[in-house]
Amino acid sequence: MVLLSGGMDSATCLALATRDAPPVHALTIDYGQRHRRELRSAARLARHYRVAAHVRLTLPVGPLLDSALTRARAPLPSRPPRGRRVPPTYVPARNTLLLAVALGYAESHRLGRIYYGANAIDYSGYPDCRPEFVTAFNALARRAVRSPAEGGHRIRLVAPLIDRSKAEVVRLGDRLGVPWRWTWSCYAGGRRPCGRCDACRWRARGFRVLGRPDPARSART
Amino acid sequence: MVLLSGGMDSATCLALATRDAPPVHALTIDYGQRHRRELRSAARLARHYRVAAHVRLTLPVGPLLDSALTRARAPLPSRPPRGRRVPPTYVPARNTLLLAVALGYAESHRLGRIYYGANAIDYSGYPDCRPEFVTAFNALARRAVRSPAEGGHRIRLVAPLIDRSKAEVVRLGDRLGVPWRWTWSCYAGGRRPCGRCDACRWRARGFRVLGRPDPARSART
Repeated sequence: MVLLSGGMDSATCLALATRDAPPVHALTIDYGQRHRRELRSAARLARHYRVAAHVRLTLPVGPLLDSALTRARAPLPSRPPRGRRVPPTYVPARNTLLLAVALGYAESHRLGRIYYGANAIDYSGYPDCRPEFVTAFNALARRAVRSPAEGGHRIRLVAPLIDRSKAEVVRLGDRLGVPWRWTWSCYAGGRRPCGRCDACRWRARGFRVLGRPDPARSART
Repeated sequence: MVLLSGGMDSATCLALATRDAPPVHALTIDYGQRHRRELRSAARLARHYRVAAHVRLTLPVGPLLDSALTRARAPLPSRPPRGRRVPPTYVPARNTLLLAVALGYAESHRLGRIYYGANAIDYSGYPDCRPEFVTAFNALARRAVRSPAEGGHRIRLVAPLIDRSKAEVVRLGDRLGVPWRWTWSCYAGGRRPCGRCDACRWRARGFRVLGRPDPARSART
């Protein structure tokens, strides 16, 4: 299964899973993010890849999790914070929460792999996008669900993009034929990408390094 | 903070947290359990202990998680399964999910401890109630959220009842003055405890071993 937000990384994971481990179930969660627009992109991508199931779920946790992504009028940073601070777009334990839902779904449907588009290079410095987090989640998953000896099965979290730069993600996605025009990155919650937020900048950088335009900038979706 | 289901174990955790680590925030989640009756008990207990906040949240994950507790008409076992199997009342990754919400809330509100009423003795054999799970979740929590060096704080999961029998929980709760009459254990979803399900049996055993009646059996709540 694939945790599908609708961004470039999860779209690339969906392409990889479709190639390597069909049938694919995709999970998209509305957790109160201001850029709810990404949910539409997720739906479009799920149709494109003809997933076996696209599970859409609303979890009303936004008011509980203090973040610039869950408060409609909080300022969005356009540059990385100084020192070792994590940017205000980090949502406390959000990825742990999304992966917990994925884990329960995977156990219920006997799916063996969860694809997670985390990225530790060219990224915003979120703690739950680092390789150590992925390792720790896998260690937890082995304890959290029924073992094979108890009638369960092994479930592995895979993060195939974790050590790729955004340009490398674009290159891989190009090879896989990912329809970039249907992906959505902007955090701001507008109808068009703002071009200024963290997510817009990393995206632009990925295409710029490869010397090619972002197909989403001219597409009508 | 306390993960408060409304049962005996979480009520005892709430009493412990109120004594040792006030102010206490309690978190109660409606995940589609058939014994939604427990939510009323949680609210009653939260009032009794005058928590600083009682967060109630509905997560519509029931249909995604295959369990006898999320299907209204599934038979409930009245005795342990044979061999090393986990009973059908186990809800896939539910506790990981509830704890992920607690982790995000604790990070957002700078709370340092999550009390978790898991019990590995006199229990149903759920994987996410074992000490290894608690250890693995703590290892994950250290990676999942902002570290102190990044402007965050340490959050520890504590499971003070993990190696106590149900009778020992009753004895501890008695000392702390836990109002047992307001706690709810039965899985069946009726207005009165069924007396036959797993949860009813473990509860009855706890009081029987101590040679005293269960106050909830005569109380009107």
